[in-house]
Amino acid sequence: MQLIANAEIEESPAFIPLHPVEEKESEEVKYIGLDLSEMEQVQEAVSCLPTWSQREVNSLNPSFHRWTIMDYSRAYHSKTITPLTVAERFIAAVSESSKPPLNMSFFINYNVEDILKQAAESTYRYENGEPLSVLDGVPIAIKDEIDCLPYPTTGGTSWLHKLRSCTGDASCVKCLRLCGALIVGKTNMHELGIGTSGINPHHGSTRNPYNTNRICGGSSSGSAAVVAAGLCPAALGVDGGGSVRIPASLCGVVGFKPTFGRVPHSGVLPLNWTVGMVGIIAGTIEDAFIVYAAIGSKLPSHQNTILPPKLCFPLLNSSSPISSITLAKYGEWFNDCSDDIKVCCSIALDKLQKHHGWKTVEVTIPEIEVMRLAHYSTIASECSTSLSSYLEKLDSAQLGWDARVALAVYGSFTSKEYIKAQKIRNRQMYFHQKIFMHADVIVSPTTGVTAYPILNDALKTGELDYINGAALVRYSIAGNFLGLPAVTVPVGYDKTGLPIGLQFIGRPWSEATLIHIACAMQALCIADYKRPEVFHDLLSQK
Amino acid sequence: MQLIANAEIEESPAFIPLHPVEEKESEEVKYIGLDLSEMEQVQEAVSCLPTWSQREVNSLNPSFHRWTIMDYSRAYHSKTITPLTVAERFIAAVSESSKPPLNMSFFINYNVEDILKQAAESTYRYENGEPLSVLDGVPIAIKDEIDCLPYPTTGGTSWLHKLRSCTGDASCVKCLRLCGALIVGKTNMHELGIGTSGINPHHGSTRNPYNTNRICGGSSSGSAAVVAAGLCPAALGVDGGGSVRIPASLCGVVGFKPTFGRVPHSGVLPLNWTVGMVGIIAGTIEDAFIVYAAIGSKLPSHQNTILPPKLCFPLLNSSSPISSITLAKYGEWFNDCSDDIKVCCSIALDKLQKHHGWKTVEVTIPEIEVMRLAHYSTIASECSTSLSSYLEKLDSAQLGWDARVALAVYGSFTSKEYIKAQKIRNRQMYFHQKIFMHADVIVSPTTGVTAYPILNDALKTGELDYINGAALVRYSIAGNFLGLPAVTVPVGYDKTGLPIGLQFIGRPWSEATLIHIACAMQALCIADYKRPEVFHDLLSQK
Repeated sequence: MQLIANAEIEESPAFIPLHPVEEKESEEVKYIGLDLSEMEQVQEAVSCLPTWSQREVNSLNPSFHRWTIMDYSRAYHSKTITPLTVAERFIAAVSESSKPPLNMSFFINYNVEDILKQAAESTYRYENGEPLSVLDGVPIAIKDEIDCLPYPTTGGTSWLHKLRSCTGDASCVKCLRLCGALIVGKTNMHELGIGTSGINPHHGSTRNPYNTNRICGGSSSGSAAVVAAGLCPAALGVDGGGSVRIPASLCGVVGFKPTFGRVPHSGVLPLNWTVGMVGIIAGTIEDAFIVYAAIGSKLPSHQNTILPPKLCFPLLNSSSPISSITLAKYGEWFNDCSDDIKVCCSIALDKLQKHHGWKTVEVTIPEIEVMRLAHYSTIASECSTSLSSYLEKLDSAQLGWDARVALAVYGSFTSKEYIKAQKIRNRQMYFHQKIFMHADVIVSPTTGVTAYPILNDALKTGELDYINGAALVRYSIAGNFLGLPAVTVPVGYDKTGLPIGLQFIGRPWSEATLIHIACAMQALCIADYKRPEVFHDLLSQK
Repeated sequence: MQLIANAEIEESPAFIPLHPVEEKESEEVKYIGLDLSEMEQVQEAVSCLPTWSQREVNSLNPSFHRWTIMDYSRAYHSKTITPLTVAERFIAAVSESSKPPLNMSFFINYNVEDILKQAAESTYRYENGEPLSVLDGVPIAIKDEIDCLPYPTTGGTSWLHKLRSCTGDASCVKCLRLCGALIVGKTNMHELGIGTSGINPHHGSTRNPYNTNRICGGSSSGSAAVVAAGLCPAALGVDGGGSVRIPASLCGVVGFKPTFGRVPHSGVLPLNWTVGMVGIIAGTIEDAFIVYAAIGSKLPSHQNTILPPKLCFPLLNSSSPISSITLAKYGEWFNDCSDDIKVCCSIALDKLQKHHGWKTVEVTIPEIEVMRLAHYSTIASECSTSLSSYLEKLDSAQLGWDARVALAVYGSFTSKEYIKAQKIRNRQMYFHQKIFMHADVIVSPTTGVTAYPILNDALKTGELDYINGAALVRYSIAGNFLGLPAVTVPVGYDKTGLPIGLQFIGRPWSEATLIHIACAMQALCIADYKRPEVFHDLLSQK
């Protein structure tokens, strides 16, 4: 960390990654009124979707399709199936996945009675022709870092919920409930979100639906795995250092992290204050968009922030294609990954350019390693502070081995190192601003490696794998430290069939553009999507 | 500091003391258009002043009157005197004050040639009937922490200017120049602003014009002393821990610190980022108001801030008195000062209540000592960070003894302590918000002691007097740590004739109300103001 402590930096510290709001209206997006309810926002999102049925697109891929939110909604409307039947199938599938030989460890908690009660209410609403929105009765899972009744919030630990009780739903969960979503339980996660493997010695290690001997990435491991396994079309995670995008990429699904300040943070475990935020994991970018419409807020969500700009949605159903996009690529960084990832991501990017005539400019992002260290000292200092009153009372034997080591390092930073990290944050915000003067998005692989094996030793103790850990987190930092919106889209598989994701990092508040680009990328890859080994088909008969 | 490190605090950290802007229009103030220039803002302020001549008010006090900005302006307009003559008298007076027996050490730098050149230009403007504003040709001094050509910026050290060159005027200095002010040099200050006595082993210790064997307070020591001594009607200081208000109080003049974010900070030595800001020292509250009108900005002045609300001025010339004011007083804290201060401040407050029928409510401000420690660890960590690249190259023999000790302590905080301090900041912002729901201002003495003796030993080495230091800073913290506006008004003298100040701390962005209240207080005390031992009468013949 000497690198940071000795850096000479003239910039002022930027303690919070807040970006000025430039309200310039565009014809390519739909602006959402401040007076709209969550339900109405979801309806607006649906009105932006293409008029062709998504089911038809899915049928482009004969080997596999993932049921989307609209598939659920149509099935419920047409009375092909009821939310109650879906809930029963869901419960049976989770129960089966939790036992040998699968041992998927998707959930830390799920309450059968609560799920059936919600499903019965939703079924009743459909029977009366009064569903709340297209999300009514659609199963959605919540990372166990987010408060959600009737569950405790463990944060992936064996102890935190005993010291801190969950007294209500987090804001983002409230929004989903207002839209009728069927909240199906609390997903597994890396202990305290301090690692990216998803290996958890207390609640079992979530396994990758594409290969159950492999990690599924983290820290929002369960949320990515349940979506990949077909148990939910979407789930919520929290992304403080790639924790939504990494597992989404490793599990072959979409991971979407909006701009810092766009999604209310209240009711999320305060593990840090300036780098983490709620993100969405979904089977398709359209479903991530619908959930974003439900939870994206028009009001200030962090203390002392500027108001976010108007919420705006991409017109995915527009007859004219999105206007010319410029992608920024930092070649040396882009290629700092496994050969399979490099080849697969390059081919995907080529397709995108050729099909839409978009151009890529070569850029350099200076001091990426310095930024990683500055982010590390920031999240470490904040996590250590937020947990300090609990940790004083805690027998460290209750922590996994990796958490013990990490927390010891986390508590070791000086105030000077912390403030210098905030100066580096300001400098990097400037560097990225410069890049965004010449490009709409930065494109990179989402991770440097695909899902690596779960070693038997690690299951009981947790694991510290710095080499793989660094490769997993390599491309995530700007999204957290600078608060930029980012999305990962599955673009293919490595030689062993493990998913690969491509990441787009956008300008502040450019979610609409980012969704549009991700949608274009997905359309070019969806025909080749492969079915995971573990997949539960809740809508069709089994 | 254990107190802070172990505090259990649920609040999020508030890294910057930014307050939400509530735009509610009031009829008691004048709103200033966004398109107005600095000159026009000054003109607006003048139009808010009472129509009766301030000279008449001054003449209420036969023993002494301080020449005001309006006195200078009228004298120049009536050709009673020219800026050039004032400049010559100023130079002679400073020269005399700098030599034995006085050794006042008012300035670190003043350039005779530059002063005469500005004065000649101003004189020429008056000859042509085209003065820029009422500030044209009015001598104003600048603390040597603020960049101002043609001077280096020493920050009160013997070395900082050799490592960091001054390449232009700070924003606030630019504003004053645009209004025609005669910038007369760089005032002495406590080394690096890290103390409040004003004792400086490198540039001499500024002496109190009321008693030259006494300190004048700091860190903006020279700025307060030159105003008290009649060399300038106003001067700029910087207030990171009472550094404008403390010396103003000890020297019997007005000290005014606007809300954090109201005065642009660019071009001020970056000794900290979140607690310090430019403040104004002046002979009368009306003069502080005029300078505020020149330097108060309508634009965001710190990175990532919300826009400040509309600039608004108090209608001091209104025929109807300001509507009913409620003052909050925390009795135990109010009385934690010397007997003379307690009695004098209580009498002043009584007068104010009786004369205007305002009421005082008793309040408790919880955890004041915790706030002081949190402020200390914040300013210490930030100062240590901002100076770290310089300090590495520095032989500590170049620092005063007090600065050596302070910088050693400043560098000792952990990131956890820093972040917990920011949580305490958030909690205190909440406590103060609660108080401001029931009161317009908080009233307190400005300091716990009056100007104490300068010991001979201290002159060469600097001094660390923790008892007196704590008493000086006791009432200042909320103005800095919470970014609240505050003003000190002279209200009397102790038994030995040393000045005593009363402080009013306002709601965020309530400068207009604060000026109004200070004006009312001053009007009730001005008849008893005493002439300092050292006083230079620049407008009258000597």
